[in-house]
This record gives sequence, C-alpha cells and structure tokens, in this order.
Amino acid sequence: MSTLSSSSQTSASSHEDRLRAGTQISTSSEARKFLDDHDVFIFDLDGCLYDGNITFDGVGSLLKRLYDEHKDVWCFTNNSSKTRQQYVDKVTKMYPEVDGLFKEDRVLCSAYLTGLRLEQLGITRVYVLGTQNLVRELESRGITVVGGGEADSGKAMDAESLREINVDPTIQAVISGFDVQINYYKLAYSSLCLQLIPGCKFIATNPDAQIPVAKGALMAPGNLCIVRALATASGREPDCFIAKPEPFAMQAAIRKAHPDTPSSRMVMVGDRIDTDIHFGLNSGIQSLLVCSGVTSEERAIAASSGQEDRKDPCVWDYWCVDLSTMEHLLEQQDN
Amino acid sequence: MSTLSSSSQTSASSHEDRLRAGTQISTSSEARKFLDDHDVFIFDLDGCLYDGNITFDGVGSLLKRLYDEHKDVWCFTNNSSKTRQQYVDKVTKMYPEVDGLFKEDRVLCSAYLTGLRLEQLGITRVYVLGTQNLVRELESRGITVVGGGEADSGKAMDAESLREINVDPTIQAVISGFDVQINYYKLAYSSLCLQLIPGCKFIATNPDAQIPVAKGALMAPGNLCIVRALATASGREPDCFIAKPEPFAMQAAIRKAHPDTPSSRMVMVGDRIDTDIHFGLNSGIQSLLVCSGVTSEERAIAASSGQEDRKDPCVWDYWCVDLSTMEHLLEQQDN
Repeated sequence: MSTLSSSSQTSASSHEDRLRAGTQISTSSEARKFLDDHDVFIFDLDGCLYDGNITFDGVGSLLKRLYDEHKDVWCFTNNSSKTRQQYVDKVTKMYPEVDGLFKEDRVLCSAYLTGLRLEQLGITRVYVLGTQNLVRELESRGITVVGGGEADSGKAMDAESLREINVDPTIQAVISGFDVQINYYKLAYSSLCLQLIPGCKFIATNPDAQIPVAKGALMAPGNLCIVRALATASGREPDCFIAKPEPFAMQAAIRKAHPDTPSSRMVMVGDRIDTDIHFGLNSGIQSLLVCSGVTSEERAIAASSGQEDRKDPCVWDYWCVDLSTMEHLLEQQDN
Repeated sequence: MSTLSSSSQTSASSHEDRLRAGTQISTSSEARKFLDDHDVFIFDLDGCLYDGNITFDGVGSLLKRLYDEHKDVWCFTNNSSKTRQQYVDKVTKMYPEVDGLFKEDRVLCSAYLTGLRLEQLGITRVYVLGTQNLVRELESRGITVVGGGEADSGKAMDAESLREINVDPTIQAVISGFDVQINYYKLAYSSLCLQLIPGCKFIATNPDAQIPVAKGALMAPGNLCIVRALATASGREPDCFIAKPEPFAMQAAIRKAHPDTPSSRMVMVGDRIDTDIHFGLNSGIQSLLVCSGVTSEERAIAASSGQEDRKDPCVWDYWCVDLSTMEHLLEQQDN
C-alpha cells in the first residue's frame, strides 16, 4: 500500500472516511512509487490522455513505459459515440509508441458496456437515442436496433402527427446515449415506448451532464440532458446508468481479467471527479486525479489544503498536475 | 361563499387544510348556485373547452350564457405555440355563439404572459427555444428575438462545430417554450448563453411535463422536458416559470381588470390538477375540476370519497363531469 496517500491507508473503512483529497505526486520518487504500487491502470481518455485532437507531451512515453513494465493498461470513456476499435485507432494514431500494444479488448466505452449489459439482461431489441457507432456496437452483439444514428433524424413534429405514432410493442428497452441529432420525434417516440410497452427498460449509457469542449472553456450538453428530458416526458427515472461512476465495468470486464489482483493495486486515472474519481471509489480501487481536463489544479490544491466542498467532496487517493508531469518525473528518475 | 363546497369554507386557512376534494356539481340547483356565486370565470382550453379540434356539446351555449349574465370570461392556456388572436379565432370558429364577445384581451397564453414578464424585467433581447408564434408575441412587445421558430432548426452538430459557437453577449434571457423543432444546436447555444453571459436570465414559459394527445391516451413531451435538459446542460435552474400554476397571470392581468372583486367570486376551471387547479390555489381563488381531459372522473370520485393520493393531493373546490353536463343541468333549470 502506498505511503504517499494518507487516504489509501483507510481504504477498508467507510466511504465517509475517504472524503478527503489524496497526496500530490510531485517528486520523482513519488512517481516511481506510484507506478511500483499498481499493476492495473485504467485511464480516462479526453482530458486525461489527450484534449480532443491535441496530444499531450510525454503521454506516449508514459504508456509505453507501463507496457514495458508489464502493467495492464485499460482505457475507459463515457463517450458512447465511437466504437472500441475507433478508440484504438485514435490513441495509436496520436501515440504511435503504443501501436500494437493497445488493443480493443482493453477499451471500455459506454457503447460496448451497454451491449454487455443488454446481453446480461437478455434484451435483444431496443430503441436507441444515440450515434450510428453506438448502433454498431449493439448490433455487433446481435441486438436489433430501432432508431439510432440517422434514423428518425430530421423529423419535425406537430401535435397532429403525434396521434399517428404507433410504438413497436416488441421493443424491450430504450437506450439513451449521447445524440447530437436529438429531436422532438425521438423524444416523443421513446417516451411513448416507456409509457406504453409493459416491462420496457430505460437504460442510460452514461450520466454525464456536460461535455467539455475547447479545453474545458465551453461545456456542451451531455447525455444526462437527454436522460432528464426523457425522464420528464415519460414520468420514469432510468432503470440504470451503465458507465462511470457506476462500477459495472469493473464487474463485467476488469475484474474478469484480474480475479486475484488486490483492489489496492488497481488505479483509475482521470480528470473528472463525478465520473472518474467516483468510479474508483464505487469500485473499491485507487484513484489518481489529473488536472489536464475538467478539474483545475487550483481545485486540487484547495482540496489538499483541507478546504471543504460540500457539493462535491474530494475523494481521490492521489493527484498530479497532468500525465506529462508524471512522465517527466519518471524520466528524471531514469537519469 | 358557496355552500356547495366544504373546502371553500376554509379558504382563509392554510393550504394544508385545503388538500381535499371539493363537492361535485350534479344537480341543476348546484349548477345554478355555482354560476350565481362567481363573477369571473377563467377557463383552461384543451381538455376543458374542447379536445384538440373536437368541440364539446353545450360549451358554446354555456359561454354565451355567461356573457348574457354579464360574467367576465377569460381563457388561459399554458400552450406557448399560438398567439392570443389565434386562440380567439379557434374558439369563435368552434363556438360561433361567442363570436364578437370573446376578445383578445381576455386570452391568457404563456407566450403573451412571457412578453409581459420580460417587459416588467426590462429585458429587450432574448434567445428563444419555441415556435414562431411565441416569437411573434414577443416581437409585438418590442422584444428582439434571436433563434426561435425555424431559426437554427435542422442544424445538426459535431464536437468540432461546438468550438465555433460564439454566443451573442447582448442576449439578456433564454426563453424555454414548447419547441417541436428542438435540436442539439439550440440546447448547446442556449446553455452556453446561460453559462457565459453575466446576468442572463433563464425563463420557462410553462412547467408542463407532458401534453395529452388523442383524448389523453398518449402523453407527449411538454416544455418541462426541454427545461430539464437545459437546466442539466447549464447547471442552472430556471429563474422563473410564467404560466399556470404560477400566479403571475392573476397579478399581471386578471386582478388588474378586477381590483375590487373578492377572490371568492373568481374561479379557475380546468382539467389538470398540477396546472389549472394549483393555479386557483396559488392565486387564492376558487377552482372547478372538469373530467373531460387529463383527470378522470374515477380520480375525482376517489378523491371525493376521501381516498388519499400523496403524490398529488386533491385541492379543487368543485368538480363536475364536464362542461357539457354543467350546461345541461342549467338548461333543466331554465325549463
């Protein structure tokens, strides 16, 4: 167990006890110890490994270093708009060092996880609010998709045409994923499924309220906006959320690959408290906050110095400025 | 004060005391007394005076009767998708008996009321999520509208184009009205206005979660769905809702026409508990529930017999099956 993090020493105690900010990693020996203390590294993508299409200096070397040291490297994004292979392609294009090392079976995205969950539930026919890539991930598991992608996009509505909607009674679940082609027809159709089809499930791929754009300067509407609209329209709350901070990915994928690895040797690395850090907490594993995305360094420093934030208590075990800093510290250690 | 309604006798006491169902109007003498006891009648439209484009038998005669007896007749709808004149045209086309009697200055719709409220607040430039008719009502009061109607409809989005949004910093409020042309661009633009423009207000025309379609058999998404999506995207709750059950219309219009009429002689007539009946309660006036729309007769009977409904306690002073029944009872009295 790390001696860097005071909070990690209380990991067996209640969540309440862990509501404090962990220790900053700011020296080479701290960085080295952090690597030595963990075997499984789960990285968030946007804001952690890169910013949109902008690479971060040193991140490729850091990832390569982890592979060289036989660490198990995963990526986990709440974004449901790409397939797993598309993330592999994106990361290896940005960081050629990991080409051939980083593979599809180590990518966790909400589209993939939603397919897993539907399989568990025995659901084979769904209505989708989401992108064509979400549709592809679901179809690749043998699930029949109504709606989704371009289907039903561009349909405007008036009160009269609402009377003509007949929902497909064989739909077993409505899936709310991030959908930039959201429109009134899709909201109306899916809320009618939830109201009229007995047993129809309401499944949300992820609970992200906002999406950072342009290095966090703009916050665009995330999937939770659509989920809230649909919950209001149908009078029903979602039956479940799939992605971070829900621990489903841990049970369904990571723990399967690591039945015997102690939780204290697994770490979730990310820039968002509400998703990444809480996933670590909910999964009972360690967490490292990086300040290259949504959460600012000022915020981490304030938390470390004991300033309370009642709305969003601080729960990470470790934090560092960003992964570039982490790699530079490790390089100093090398020399 | 009416002797028909047990609850009206406690009108001076707290709201808690009034959480019970009022008396049914089922005899000619009860109907006659109800008319005699009130001077100002405020009718909800859809589900009360008509169902979509279907007229209700006797409603024209009832309205004509009220005019003949020198009652003041208002209509009040939460729908923001038509102008006041359009409602006058619709009602007089359905019920030619009131042609020339029912006039624009007695129509309260959320589009009109929103204009009034903006005028009060000194707001002259807004971004609108809503129909072209809402835009017209606002423009008729000298308000400059960005967005609204066909503007920005049909715009799909990707993450990259989000970076190119520049909000107009002179927008003073975002208005969320019912918008069947809702899309991701509009949600993103309006949520950025709320996040980035200092002092920008968030105003919702009405809090209707669902809209009944096809005699209440289908419930379609109402304005509150858009409001909840926008609140989630912006991290802000609305500064205000304008229409029923908010008492704004009472202060801004009805009370102005009736500075000296006792509240006990004014009555809100409608089919929805959450909007119509609560408007009566919030405005301190009487209320009559009709069972020709969202609320069923079974519900009213159950409430009258004392069956509790914790989620939506019963608060009406009177109820009757529908306005056709009311008119038929009055006709029996005539003969």
